[in-house]
Amino acid sequence: MHNLPDISFFHRLADAAANVALAYYRKPIEVEEKVKPGYRFDPVTIADKKAEQVIRALISGEFPDHAVLGEEFGESGQGPVKWIIDPIDGTRPFICGIPVWGTLIGLTVDGKACMGMMSQPFTGERFWATGTEAWTGGASGSSRLQTKAAGSLATAILHTNSPDRFPDFPDINFARLKDAALMTRYGGECYAFAMLAAGQIDLCLEPSLQPYDIAALIPIIEQAGGVVTNLDGKSAEDGGAVLASANHHLHEEALSLING
Amino acid sequence: MHNLPDISFFHRLADAAANVALAYYRKPIEVEEKVKPGYRFDPVTIADKKAEQVIRALISGEFPDHAVLGEEFGESGQGPVKWIIDPIDGTRPFICGIPVWGTLIGLTVDGKACMGMMSQPFTGERFWATGTEAWTGGASGSSRLQTKAAGSLATAILHTNSPDRFPDFPDINFARLKDAALMTRYGGECYAFAMLAAGQIDLCLEPSLQPYDIAALIPIIEQAGGVVTNLDGKSAEDGGAVLASANHHLHEEALSLING
Repeated sequence: MHNLPDISFFHRLADAAANVALAYYRKPIEVEEKVKPGYRFDPVTIADKKAEQVIRALISGEFPDHAVLGEEFGESGQGPVKWIIDPIDGTRPFICGIPVWGTLIGLTVDGKACMGMMSQPFTGERFWATGTEAWTGGASGSSRLQTKAAGSLATAILHTNSPDRFPDFPDINFARLKDAALMTRYGGECYAFAMLAAGQIDLCLEPSLQPYDIAALIPIIEQAGGVVTNLDGKSAEDGGAVLASANHHLHEEALSLING
Repeated sequence: MHNLPDISFFHRLADAAANVALAYYRKPIEVEEKVKPGYRFDPVTIADKKAEQVIRALISGEFPDHAVLGEEFGESGQGPVKWIIDPIDGTRPFICGIPVWGTLIGLTVDGKACMGMMSQPFTGERFWATGTEAWTGGASGSSRLQTKAAGSLATAILHTNSPDRFPDFPDINFARLKDAALMTRYGGECYAFAMLAAGQIDLCLEPSLQPYDIAALIPIIEQAGGVVTNLDGKSAEDGGAVLASANHHLHEEALSLING
């Protein structure tokens, strides 16, 4: 058996990252630019780096045999159990002061995302997957997450971070999905995926994710009743083009339009 | 002299609206559809209507001689002092569970927006203009709002709620402004305007606002050092196409591109 963490350890990691992130949030902060294809401006801040450092330090202290993949400092270690970290997912809204960013902490075993947490420290909300159940909690207590069980595309709310990226991905028929949905919203970052797990929205489509953008969110959505795959219907742990849906029926319906 | 409210009365109105809005936020809620040109889906909920009713009741009790314009119940009364109310600006993100919506409470005297408040009850934040100063406050105290004083378009962060509306407004050169800005973000609703007042972002452009979408925000931005006009550089109280900028220099630069 693998030496797996309790969900309380995820909360410890999120606490540590929250202290760092909130110390820089809405303060004057130097923004560096990363060079990554497909984005004109890809910012990173000292908050991203320091938050990942405190998370890595806690993990290596408690689970020295676990591998870690983080957005800012890459891969370390190897083995069947791997932490996949985005210290501040949504650096753009972080810089803008808009609380749809989050700290993403995922855990994969043999490549399968099985536990995860999204923490939004400004609102004080967390969304997490224990391995079997998905929960949300904040100052006012915690409750089970449950995606929408019913509904068709005609009543579906679709989120994607920005429509501006889709012209680079002509195989993804975003326009057709958007035309079929009731409403399309932009800019929600990882917060939109959390709201899908919470039963507020129906679909999230992103054309180009990194593993650390999605690994933590997969178990939260799946254990809340939803579905997350790449556009071939395969597991989404490696990122790329990813669709998350509130239920299987909607997922199949959406995939057929996107790939059409 | 007109019988004008103290800012504490705005807080009373925001408190009353917050109680209504939070009672419905992230709960199963019936969504009606309004018919308004330019939007395929224009939702309104019982929360919008009830929140406006409690605000109107308080105003008519305290200031029976004041006129009121609200999104849900239209115009009532007349006279030089007019309240301009959007009980839930951003009904779409309200339905999605994303806390970038807000209660907008504006006051105009002889048509000029001079006091205003934006309240985001889920985060517990308020942004307001007293007539001379702009402030923000929440659980951790209050502080003066100040827009960014410096910066050029090349370093500017631009927000607009959705790029999908601009094709209906070919005279507005959104693409040129977007190309000149450092970064463009979507989906921020009234929260983006508040972040402009707070010095986090530089520009907000909206192609088609109603008076109740902007009246409360104008004094907050102006009294924080920013500029809000329509695209002719005239006062924006009547809505329409509206540009808000962190400072005059940026505003002139942006207007010339948009109108070019």
